Formats: sequence, C-alpha cells, structure tokens
Amino acid sequence: MRYLLLHSVVLLSMQLGAQNRPPAISSPDVHPDHSISFRYYSRTASRVLVKGEFLKSPVPMTKDTSGIWSVTVPPVQPDIYPYSFMVDSVDMADPNNTYVFANERFKRSIVNIPGDQPLIHSLQEVPHGKISYHLYESSTLGTTRPLLVYTPPGYSYDANKKYPVLYLIHGGSDTEETWTRVGQAHLIADNLIAQKKAMPMIIVMPYGNVRPKPMADFSRDMMQDIIPFVENNYPVLTDSRNRAVAGFSVGGGQTLNIGLMNASHFSYICSYAPYTATDEFKMNFTNWSPDPALVNQQVKLFELYCGTEDFLYESVKKNILFFESKKINVKSTIVPGGHTWMNCKQYLASTLQQLFK
Amino acid sequence: MRYLLLHSVVLLSMQLGAQNRPPAISSPDVHPDHSISFRYYSRTASRVLVKGEFLKSPVPMTKDTSGIWSVTVPPVQPDIYPYSFMVDSVDMADPNNTYVFANERFKRSIVNIPGDQPLIHSLQEVPHGKISYHLYESSTLGTTRPLLVYTPPGYSYDANKKYPVLYLIHGGSDTEETWTRVGQAHLIADNLIAQKKAMPMIIVMPYGNVRPKPMADFSRDMMQDIIPFVENNYPVLTDSRNRAVAGFSVGGGQTLNIGLMNASHFSYICSYAPYTATDEFKMNFTNWSPDPALVNQQVKLFELYCGTEDFLYESVKKNILFFESKKINVKSTIVPGGHTWMNCKQYLASTLQQLFK
Repeated sequence: MRYLLLHSVVLLSMQLGAQNRPPAISSPDVHPDHSISFRYYSRTASRVLVKGEFLKSPVPMTKDTSGIWSVTVPPVQPDIYPYSFMVDSVDMADPNNTYVFANERFKRSIVNIPGDQPLIHSLQEVPHGKISYHLYESSTLGTTRPLLVYTPPGYSYDANKKYPVLYLIHGGSDTEETWTRVGQAHLIADNLIAQKKAMPMIIVMPYGNVRPKPMADFSRDMMQDIIPFVENNYPVLTDSRNRAVAGFSVGGGQTLNIGLMNASHFSYICSYAPYTATDEFKMNFTNWSPDPALVNQQVKLFELYCGTEDFLYESVKKNILFFESKKINVKSTIVPGGHTWMNCKQYLASTLQQLFK
Repeated sequence: MRYLLLHSVVLLSMQLGAQNRPPAISSPDVHPDHSISFRYYSRTASRVLVKGEFLKSPVPMTKDTSGIWSVTVPPVQPDIYPYSFMVDSVDMADPNNTYVFANERFKRSIVNIPGDQPLIHSLQEVPHGKISYHLYESSTLGTTRPLLVYTPPGYSYDANKKYPVLYLIHGGSDTEETWTRVGQAHLIADNLIAQKKAMPMIIVMPYGNVRPKPMADFSRDMMQDIIPFVENNYPVLTDSRNRAVAGFSVGGGQTLNIGLMNASHFSYICSYAPYTATDEFKMNFTNWSPDPALVNQQVKLFELYCGTEDFLYESVKKNILFFESKKINVKSTIVPGGHTWMNCKQYLASTLQQLFK
C-alpha cells in the first residue's frame, strides 16, 4: 500500500503538470521604493502596454526569451490605483492579480502601494468590522437584489444597542462591491473608529444600477425597500439625525435626488463628483422650490466634493451655485485630482469624521 | 438658473460621450431554449473564440461591420459554467460580464443557464441567509487573512441558540470566495434548509492557500486560529458531532489532512476529488497506523466524491483503497463529470443533506 501511495504521488504531479497551465507569474510586485513591476505571459502577443491611473500615458512592456513581458515603473505616490494591460488591441485585467475592480463595463486590476506610514485605507492592526452580503426582495423593482452591510468592530445583534446608518452608493457602472473592493470603505471605517475620529456606525452599500440608465426607480427602492430591510434586520437608529446618504458620480446624483427629495429622512447628504445629467435630476430640480429654512434645519450637513481635474468639475461648480441660489446651505470641498477612486477614499474619510456628531 | 441647469445637462452628456468608452454590449445572453449568445467588441482583433466547460472545443465568433463579434451556441444543459474568450493569443474573461470566477491563476467568466425547474443552486423565493466577510489574525501564519461565514436564514446572534458548523475549503488556485461565487454554497444551503433537507448550519469558508504550495501550515491555521475565531464570534456548537470539514481538489486533500489527523474534532469529513500529492499528505499518511475502531466511532461520515472524467479519478480510487486497507469506513460517491465546479455543487448538496442528523 505504501508503494501504491508513493506511486500515486508521482503520477499526480505528472498529471497536474499535464494540465498545461501558463507559468506562475508574480504581478504586480510593489517595491519598497514604491516602484512597481508588472509581468504578463504571452509567446504570441506583438505588443503589451501597462495603462494605469498613476501613469500619464501607457508604458510598453518588454518580452524575455521565455515569453514573459515585464516593466518596472518609477516610484508612485502611495495609494490604490486601477490599471490594465493592453495586449495588442485588447484591454484586459492582469491575469495574475486576484485584486479586480468591481465594475460592469470594464475589467481592470488594482494595485495597492502602501505608504511608509499606514494610509487611512490601509489594513492596520486595529479591530475589524465585517461586511455582510445580503439578498433582499425589492418590491419596487420586482426582483431580488444584492446589498452589502458593514457592521463595526465588536458589533453583535443587541436590540438595546442601536447604531446610526450611512447609505453609500457606488458610481454608474460600478457594483455594490466597489465601495469595499476599490474604496476600502470597511478599512477606512475600521481605522477612523479605532482612532475615535468616527462614530461606530453601520454602512449600507446597495446596488444602485437600474437598467437601462439611472432612474427614479432606485430612489423608490431605497426609500421603500432598502431602508425598511435594514431597519428590520439590524439594530439601527431610525430618526433622521442618525441617517446619512452619500455616493459617487451617478451615485452622487442619486444621493442628491434621494437626500434632498427626502430631507426629513436624512440629516447628512454628501455627494462626491455627482453626475446630474439624468432625467430624474431634471424632474426633481428643474422647478424645485424648497423652503430653505426647513431644509437647512433638517439637513445638518450637505456637502459636495469634487477634484479640480474631474471631468465633472465644471458641472459640480454649477450644482453648488444652483443650491446656493436656492438658499440651501451647501459646504463644498474641492481638492486636487480627477474622477477617481483615489479621490473617493478621501471624500469618504472626510464624511465619516463628520457624521452623527 | 434653469437655463444654466439645462445647459449643464447637455454639456454633461457631451462630456460623458467624450469618455470614448466601447459600446455597451450584452454578453452572455441566455435564451429560453438554453442556447447562449456571446458578444465581444474589437475592431482590430483578427480572431475571437469562446472556450467553455460546456463546449467540446472552442467556437469561433464572427465580426459584424460595427466591430462586434458574436456567436450563439446550441442549447446547453442547465448549470453554471466557466468560460473565457480567446482574443488572438489572449485568454480573457468576458469584459461585459460582471460574473467572474474567483481564482488566483486565471480570469474566467461564469454563465448561469437556469433550469426549466429551479436547480438546487438557483436563486429561489425562499428565505436567504447572508455571507459575512471577516478579517482574522492568524497567529500561525503571522498575517491577517480573509474568512467568509454563511449564516442561515433567520440567524441572529443569540447565545441561547447554537448552530453546527461546516468548514468548507476551496481548490488550489481558488479563493475564499469560490465556494459562494462559483459554487453557490449559500444558495444551495438556503434551498436545502427551506426544503427541510438540510439542518440550519453555519458554513465557514476560509482562504486555504499558503504559498508557495499546500503546506501543513493551513491545517495548523484551521485548528489554532480559524476554529477559535469562529467559536469566539458565533454561537456555535463546539462538540465534534456538530463540526464538519469538506473541500475540493487541493482543499479536498486539506480536508483529509485536517479531518483525519483530528478525528476527535470532526464527525463529518467529506472530500471532493482530493489532490493528495502533497508533502503534508505524504507526511501524515505514509506511516499512518490509526485505530480503526476509534476513528470509525469518532467519524460518523467519511465520504470521498469524484467524477469519472476527473483527472484525479484514478488517484481517488487509490485513496479509497488506501483508507479501506486501513479498515476506515469510507463511503464513496462516483458520478459522471470532471474536475469541475458543476460537480462540486452536486457534492456539496449531497453533503449538506447528511450533516448533523
């Protein structure tokens, strides 16, 4: 029997080898000086480039005799960046990187360049919350939809301890996972809570896409399905002073629709580089005539964020002027950077420190 | 102000258009007769093929004048299958399909062909459990590692209601998410619990990979870190009659190592197409001389599963002979099919119906 076993060990190794997989390649490798090596295997490609949000323009990779393409790019500002490979005409995720951008339109990989000191989104040795993946029935949309819920460190269901809630919405082609996978919302919350800069809170990350385009339906789903689901399943505070909404891009537009059309329900409305060229926004705000005194009393914080290189920057400036013209108190935070998840993480870190205080 | 707003709507539409994204394409489209259309956009590729575990060999796609490649494959047996596109020399996931195989070595997409009647892994109108994403400190491995925990429908923390636990391990280059993303473990459990064919239980899905290859370290991590973490954070039953371990491929080998080396801790050991050509398996079993009466009393169910087309089938038959030669009661379930996640779902559904009864 021992012979049989050892024989089978050799045989299995041969069989696994016969699966004819490409070589195991490490990519990306982030070096201590913050330079990054990328690698890709192809014997037949004629050109491979790296494209990334840390690069001004795509960088060509060089092939060695074993068919491994590689390049090392100079040191990059520590952060988390999306990138992809252009293999001949094909724009693709790095096949050797498990860390993938959660998005419905494109496939990109993510590279995490740690800071010499931990960044606000870094995995640190602090107590960790957890992220729960739910399915809920949306009566509004007539379907079962996904929903992520972050609960803070030490959370356990206890009807006597109730938490405030932030509803946090992703961008237009993103998914319910983009705020955690790319935005590291859970780690930002863990770190800020550990530093006592943020209140322990529950963060609900719904799936905001309604085909074919952002429609009023998601606002109804939020008010009629998502909030009741959360309030039935989690020990949350249900007054408006303990309810916030925030979102990025298309989700930033949804945040304005949901928050301002329901100002009695949300004391905190934070909109990150909102995309507002939607039918719903036009419907809600074209003839909007709010009672500013009432809204300003209901809404404790109404903040718009944008980067100066964001393609929506001019639009966001107009949004701010528009709300000011309605005498709504609007705080604006304008920072360097583009329409990126590097900026989103900053916006969220700023928001979390202002909520529920 | 209204003029400004409307002007900005037009401007934004133009700006979004200027982002120059590829056209929105629907792929895959599963038709009522179970045929499937695949689409891919490239003006410059010279050849695009579909590869899939439902196809005997890759199928070429045809390009139309707008640069959209497509093909419709004949009806496929309802199930969930991995597939990829070969674009010239590049093997890639379908860029228009968000549903991605969770794996560290390759990027494949997933297509779900629903049955005319719901399948055991189908999303059905039954109460749903949730999946919680944790980070835990592994003292064994000296790092923070991910861990997924399925809790059944109606679960909430209640120290007076305790649950049995299944520890469920993925395959060699898979991740802690493969059992849910590809294996639909949560939906299989939801459905079997709703049908009263499975007991309500907690299912723990750890990250089983330890670089550079499957090492005894993961067994120590399981016994010294993962099980204590779960027992500290969830209301679980801690006797061996309420603890099970199962896994696929490399995880099936880990299941044998963990289960049989700790038979006093696991009354249920279910191994799916185990890969056992590892140093750890050799170390544990080469000179193994168990007390069969004791092991057979400790382990209520010891089951090996394999498909007749699985490349490990001959090896699994030898594993079965080996355990039989040691007078260990081993149940074997041999079914059609290969080393696939289509088979894994069947194996898990069989296991869940036998646990904790």
